[in-house]
Amino acid sequence: MEMSNKQVILREYVSGRFPTEADMYVNTSNYISLKVPPQGSTVLVKNLYLSCDPMMRFLIMDNSHHRMTKYVYCTPGSPICGYGVAKVLDSSHPEFKQGDLVWGLTRWEEYSFITNPESLIKIRHTDTDVPLSYYTGILGMPGKTAYAGFFEVCSPKKGEYVFVSAASGAVGQLVGQFAKLAGCYVVGSAGSKEKVDLLKNKLGFDEAFNYKEEHDLDAALKRYFPQGIDVYFEHVGGEMLDAVLLNMREHGRIAVCGMISQYNLPEPQGIKNLMQIGFKRLHIHGFTHRDYDHIVPKYLDFVLPYIRQGKLVYVEDIVEGLENAPAALVGLFTDRNFGKQVVALARHDNQSSNQT
Amino acid sequence: MEMSNKQVILREYVSGRFPTEADMYVNTSNYISLKVPPQGSTVLVKNLYLSCDPMMRFLIMDNSHHRMTKYVYCTPGSPICGYGVAKVLDSSHPEFKQGDLVWGLTRWEEYSFITNPESLIKIRHTDTDVPLSYYTGILGMPGKTAYAGFFEVCSPKKGEYVFVSAASGAVGQLVGQFAKLAGCYVVGSAGSKEKVDLLKNKLGFDEAFNYKEEHDLDAALKRYFPQGIDVYFEHVGGEMLDAVLLNMREHGRIAVCGMISQYNLPEPQGIKNLMQIGFKRLHIHGFTHRDYDHIVPKYLDFVLPYIRQGKLVYVEDIVEGLENAPAALVGLFTDRNFGKQVVALARHDNQSSNQT
Repeated sequence: MEMSNKQVILREYVSGRFPTEADMYVNTSNYISLKVPPQGSTVLVKNLYLSCDPMMRFLIMDNSHHRMTKYVYCTPGSPICGYGVAKVLDSSHPEFKQGDLVWGLTRWEEYSFITNPESLIKIRHTDTDVPLSYYTGILGMPGKTAYAGFFEVCSPKKGEYVFVSAASGAVGQLVGQFAKLAGCYVVGSAGSKEKVDLLKNKLGFDEAFNYKEEHDLDAALKRYFPQGIDVYFEHVGGEMLDAVLLNMREHGRIAVCGMISQYNLPEPQGIKNLMQIGFKRLHIHGFTHRDYDHIVPKYLDFVLPYIRQGKLVYVEDIVEGLENAPAALVGLFTDRNFGKQVVALARHDNQSSNQT
Repeated sequence: MEMSNKQVILREYVSGRFPTEADMYVNTSNYISLKVPPQGSTVLVKNLYLSCDPMMRFLIMDNSHHRMTKYVYCTPGSPICGYGVAKVLDSSHPEFKQGDLVWGLTRWEEYSFITNPESLIKIRHTDTDVPLSYYTGILGMPGKTAYAGFFEVCSPKKGEYVFVSAASGAVGQLVGQFAKLAGCYVVGSAGSKEKVDLLKNKLGFDEAFNYKEEHDLDAALKRYFPQGIDVYFEHVGGEMLDAVLLNMREHGRIAVCGMISQYNLPEPQGIKNLMQIGFKRLHIHGFTHRDYDHIVPKYLDFVLPYIRQGKLVYVEDIVEGLENAPAALVGLFTDRNFGKQVVALARHDNQSSNQT
């Protein structure tokens, strides 16, 4: 059986500026055979949901000279790569078989031949009663990130004061809810009134504020944390980090998950308040979900009951079709997404698989 | 018995600029009685050695609005406060008696009435066979700092690559030698050819360089650490920190002991390479010796045998007399000291006490 394959292609590397929709284009490739080669260990998948993640900013820049670890990077002229949820159509890898649902690193196209299937995680049959798109978010990489970063890196204690930036995003909305489950006081920052309302009224944050309306972030943090901050979950960097440093309590912990405000600048902003690290004996830990693959089963056992009982909420911003994927990705960096940004390619396929 | 009391007085608070000798003056006070009041728990000491430490920069600035912890701060018109070694002349505190040798927080004067003697540590009679001045350095606060910061904060492993800035200073020279004892490769930076020679030829560093001769600190670090840095013991901040961040290895650790390059600036320099924290999963820990009082006995048992066997070297820069103390303190911030900066007030007293 042969099919055409619609793809989102990276036009050229994007460095030192905001990505735009024009950096990508949609193309339909020639008919491809929906069979894997008999030799090797390749998995052919039909992509169901694609994930828009801030870390993809690093995959579309030319960073060949300082690639830190084995990872997947995009190449101009080829489809964008990133996380997604997919259904196995054919496989020469012993661990995957036709009909399996998987999540992991795939490409922005209808069908992908995955030649490194160790980057795929099989979705347990018992765990398809929740929206499959959740495996791009709360049940996927962002969920693992939030859980590892908050519980393993920050070691929160009941009653501590927690601040989350980009708090309505894919990871932030989970960190805030985890903080409440841990008995902490949690405040989030976000970039619009609607997001602030979401944080306070739907996601259970104790307080939230719109960072765009605060001329003095230090003063804002002093208002929301008169006692100071014990745990900061860092997503944005720049001026927010500088203000947070002034408001950390002694022995405070900062988990560095990302610094999205800095990704598109020609040169990052300088952070001036690092002497606070010594004064207050702060702990700042960079981390990545990739170091926490081993916690996935434990995390799923923790999170799935809360989802099924409606005690954890997950807000998704789903656009339909590959044509809308470039705008969705670009929107992450201008704070346009409302919750976890997902691109749905084959929603019906997902629903039918849910019914089996 | 009444004595005059020579003192070094802080003229006024010093903020946002380098301290100068003119910020202090020597004064001889009226005759004081060498007896403690019968009530209370006061210890009268004769100061033998005074310590010049970079952290004293914070004691002579007006930081009343952000004093983090209970500490001793200097007041204009009163003597400078800081660490020192002293001999007890009289005491109404049950734990101290005449003739005891102590180290801890005292004042820059010949005789001090210490009204918070819990800040004093008694020197064990068995441990006076080494120079008493060492209790301002290798056996005092800087020694505890180096030991806690290197072994407890950085968790060094054999074969790791260690970088120490301000490496010939009171703490740095110990960190380098501890790193060699731990089987690490260690490189130090310092501010003169003589200091670099000291590091390489006397203190056992594998390599050392003069940061003042390096126009490109990133390039210098890449030269000395082609494999990258596992452990950075941070004393200086500013441009050095920015360059180090670019050269850290994955899972590297930075112990923030101080940032002396920033203490005298109207505004600290901005650090641009903090995204490396996330990329490389770095751990940055601020710490202070004050959180490690409990390790002092363990540390003394560790370090004293090495000193007695000549396997640890400690370089001191001792000036004589209170009149020379202001220049000695100021010299710390212009990199003039050669090793641990000490002011000797009563060397003969020390020697006679060693003989008893």
